[in-house]
Amino acid sequence: MHGYQHEDLSPDELARQEALYGPFTQSVRELADATLRTTVGEDDLRRAQAEVEAITARLRASQIDGSYGVRYSSDGGTRPWGNAVVGLRNPVAPPLDFVRDPEGRATSEFELGATYEGPPGLVHGGVSALILDQALGEACGAGGRPGMTGGLTITYKRPTRLGKLRCEAWIAERDGYKTIARGTIGDADGPSVEAEGIFIVPKWARGLFDQANQERPDRFE
Amino acid sequence: MHGYQHEDLSPDELARQEALYGPFTQSVRELADATLRTTVGEDDLRRAQAEVEAITARLRASQIDGSYGVRYSSDGGTRPWGNAVVGLRNPVAPPLDFVRDPEGRATSEFELGATYEGPPGLVHGGVSALILDQALGEACGAGGRPGMTGGLTITYKRPTRLGKLRCEAWIAERDGYKTIARGTIGDADGPSVEAEGIFIVPKWARGLFDQANQERPDRFE
Repeated sequence: MHGYQHEDLSPDELARQEALYGPFTQSVRELADATLRTTVGEDDLRRAQAEVEAITARLRASQIDGSYGVRYSSDGGTRPWGNAVVGLRNPVAPPLDFVRDPEGRATSEFELGATYEGPPGLVHGGVSALILDQALGEACGAGGRPGMTGGLTITYKRPTRLGKLRCEAWIAERDGYKTIARGTIGDADGPSVEAEGIFIVPKWARGLFDQANQERPDRFE
Repeated sequence: MHGYQHEDLSPDELARQEALYGPFTQSVRELADATLRTTVGEDDLRRAQAEVEAITARLRASQIDGSYGVRYSSDGGTRPWGNAVVGLRNPVAPPLDFVRDPEGRATSEFELGATYEGPPGLVHGGVSALILDQALGEACGAGGRPGMTGGLTITYKRPTRLGKLRCEAWIAERDGYKTIARGTIGDADGPSVEAEGIFIVPKWARGLFDQANQERPDRFE
């Protein structure tokens, strides 16, 4: 298992990796969508499967042992490229790209297709919960209050249609090591799902948190 | 967009489709995992991408217009093969296979790998919410009280490790068109995440629901 790994990349190397892994991962997302929607015949499908298995075998000839983890650099930047919601290298992630505001706000515009379906034509209610958990955490992180989710309450106001969506989250309350964040997901007709979550600074990170708090108290209270 | 579609398949045809689509979809799940974890060089990655794009183009030569929807047969069986949690044909779904008990209980044992990660080595908190939403809905459906999620509350007791997991959900309260379900996800050390959800019979389904309720009142109150 890979944890929080320190790995500095030059700006050029970072740009090279993003330009390489981003499009490759996107091609596998497209394949996943086509896998679900295709109506080609049995022979075509079996041939596709054999080819997919051959590609996988070649990729696995050299791979990391477990999960990707989170890589961070000396400037404080992180690369959660395996993350199930925002991971640049994760074909299961839509992925979302959040605009983060240091006041403690995160917003994202994105599109969800057939692979995120629950009821016909609608976003799976659990997918909305998945995305809101990440969004609320991003808002906390943006506001200098990163934490693990302690609890999450989701309220479904109406169904959310697959297609173009918008997600928005913000810090609502700051209380010591606890932060309460709220957020919404919506389609063209406005917000359809609301969330409130409590995020807690993990014990191992509290020293760092206290230090940052002393240096920039305005960011924390 | 495809909705609830009536489509009867003979048992043989159903078995044929499961044996065809199940392994093909699984091969794409494996590719997604390898895509995230591979460390092969740039040339190998670009070659893989070109091949993936070619396969996708062939699959898309004949495909349904929008999302998969839910197919149902005259015997009442459903095939939610596009579902983001349980979909047999959805490479984004783990997928989970629930054992459903007509008393209103659903359980599943499954494994989550690198593509479901949040913090390093741990299941993304939102993935737990995604799975629990489905599990609670499965319990309601199993107990003859299908519904749309109205609200969901998730409590994270401790982190959940990637690997072998168990999910369990059950009906806690029945009240007219509303059902309250509860459930847990856990790893080898027992339950780590708890959920409670309220599920509501959609307006368009209430006639059917009332009819079933009259015929078999013991299942509903």
